[in-house]
Amino acid sequence: MIIDVHGHYTTAPAALGRWRDAQTAALVDPAQAPDPAGPRIGDDEIRESIETNQLRQMDERGIDLTVFSPRASFMAHHIGDFETSSAWARVCNDLCHRVAALFPERFAPGAMLPQSPGVDPATVIPELERAVNDLGAVAVNVNPDPSGGHWTAPPLTDRSWYPVWEKLVELDVPAMVHVSTSCNPAFHTTGSHYLNADTTAFMQLLQGNLFADFPDLRLVIPHGGGGVPYHWGRFRGLAQALGKPEPEEALLGNVLFDTCVYHQPGIDLLLEVIPHEAVLFASEMIGAVRGVDPRTGHHFDDTRRYVENAGLPDEALRAVEERNARRVYPRLDALLTAQGR
Amino acid sequence: MIIDVHGHYTTAPAALGRWRDAQTAALVDPAQAPDPAGPRIGDDEIRESIETNQLRQMDERGIDLTVFSPRASFMAHHIGDFETSSAWARVCNDLCHRVAALFPERFAPGAMLPQSPGVDPATVIPELERAVNDLGAVAVNVNPDPSGGHWTAPPLTDRSWYPVWEKLVELDVPAMVHVSTSCNPAFHTTGSHYLNADTTAFMQLLQGNLFADFPDLRLVIPHGGGGVPYHWGRFRGLAQALGKPEPEEALLGNVLFDTCVYHQPGIDLLLEVIPHEAVLFASEMIGAVRGVDPRTGHHFDDTRRYVENAGLPDEALRAVEERNARRVYPRLDALLTAQGR
Repeated sequence: MIIDVHGHYTTAPAALGRWRDAQTAALVDPAQAPDPAGPRIGDDEIRESIETNQLRQMDERGIDLTVFSPRASFMAHHIGDFETSSAWARVCNDLCHRVAALFPERFAPGAMLPQSPGVDPATVIPELERAVNDLGAVAVNVNPDPSGGHWTAPPLTDRSWYPVWEKLVELDVPAMVHVSTSCNPAFHTTGSHYLNADTTAFMQLLQGNLFADFPDLRLVIPHGGGGVPYHWGRFRGLAQALGKPEPEEALLGNVLFDTCVYHQPGIDLLLEVIPHEAVLFASEMIGAVRGVDPRTGHHFDDTRRYVENAGLPDEALRAVEERNARRVYPRLDALLTAQGR
Repeated sequence: MIIDVHGHYTTAPAALGRWRDAQTAALVDPAQAPDPAGPRIGDDEIRESIETNQLRQMDERGIDLTVFSPRASFMAHHIGDFETSSAWARVCNDLCHRVAALFPERFAPGAMLPQSPGVDPATVIPELERAVNDLGAVAVNVNPDPSGGHWTAPPLTDRSWYPVWEKLVELDVPAMVHVSTSCNPAFHTTGSHYLNADTTAFMQLLQGNLFADFPDLRLVIPHGGGGVPYHWGRFRGLAQALGKPEPEEALLGNVLFDTCVYHQPGIDLLLEVIPHEAVLFASEMIGAVRGVDPRTGHHFDDTRRYVENAGLPDEALRAVEERNARRVYPRLDALLTAQGR
């Protein structure tokens, strides 16, 4: 089967956006506060928003299941404070849970966390536990820059993050390191901020020694690892200069890259440079790049085509498309196993 | 001949660092201010610092000439104010000029600019003119983030940058878009900040329309274009979504990528994806990655090996290694022509 570890609910019914607008407006005018119970969205609306979008394209592309988390650019942790993010994360995580409940064989829920700039990362733990234990989330997204492009948070190797890593290990859930929208005019959200964050996170991990303290922690770097595989020689050379082991040894047991790279040469490089055990199939569909490539007649983000055209041996292809995900996301594996898959 | 468009004077005699330390100390204690005329460094010291380092490796690798600018990570525009940067740029640019004067067939000077966070970019123009007209600089480095990792400057397409672009066009000199050291703990200087800046700058240019206003401006994005060529499909798709032409058409007449990518698969991808007319040979030697790759027995930054192993047709190889540089850096071409090369 084909597992896509990186999908977001980018097509949620408009009531979700209105709820968020009201919540944002209430930061200035409390009278505008939305219903704390969340937006009213019927199951039919959810079904339609999925069937006409992600599910349709998953069927066209032969993707069996997607790990489905709240829209990344809408996490916008920089808005308001911890309470703002907390209420917003609950609403968004509930919705992804409902999608998975409506399509249990096609979506497994991922969750966002109620991060807020300058707030102790440990404060996300109650929502993290709720998402995993109550909502069935098989993965969470951790934002290394809740400020939205001002990069005021300490590196992921800082001790302040440790309670989050401890809880992830305890729950046996991987985290995808994924920023949200940029509110810094220097950075385009999906064109530079996302890729920069991926590169930044990897280098933080290379500089540090996090996996000595958390040997069971798994972190997924999305968007093909940002600039990392293309510059693999640079990272190997920097590791050497820092007196670290080869990054393969030091990091790739715990760090994985997804395949959200939207052309054949990029996927070819990723699969040539990074051991197949550390690559997870993903497309981030429907996401940043929605168009059809006029040169191929296919969607830019139809990454399955690139992955299957990369000439991998069958075993490696199966690892990238299914087996690695089942290993790295044990709660997803348990869910699939319970379904007899 | 082989032209390397990206070298920095990373091996300058220690007196330069002591001068900068005194200048920095004087920000707090004016009594420590160094000699405004700059550090005293003899020609023999400069010769030795070059002959035992860059020149030795250029000879080993068959590089004929390097465009040689002040050490990028030491530009540190975030230190002090405009006067600080102005004095420091003068000192550093004078030294690169002296290197080129001592080895006129091996080095052509590049220059740094006296940028300072929050200061109008137009203030760099007097030093830019001095560097080109008096010191013979054939290129300059422009820092898109003088804050050193806080990214407080407006995008390169902002009107405030226009006087700099006008002057570059008037002088017929290209700029390399190159950040300096990161003072943000989130970013490792050469592991993430440099690559992020390259990606960021390219996306700013893709979003904007700068070359409609400056059709003769040439901007070089170093380090193989950061994450851009690896994600070329993403950038093509984002251009399409923004209603822009293909990036090849819209940008690659004015934007060039260098070959500072430190492994064969990265160079192969760069040369497969980016038209050869938009690629400039470079190594940034001696720079961020100085070690020998234990897998090949060669320096990671010996990029000539990768470029020559990439299987380019002869004409394309000559374009990347020489002809493009002579086209994009006309003052370098004039200098070489005057030397009968």
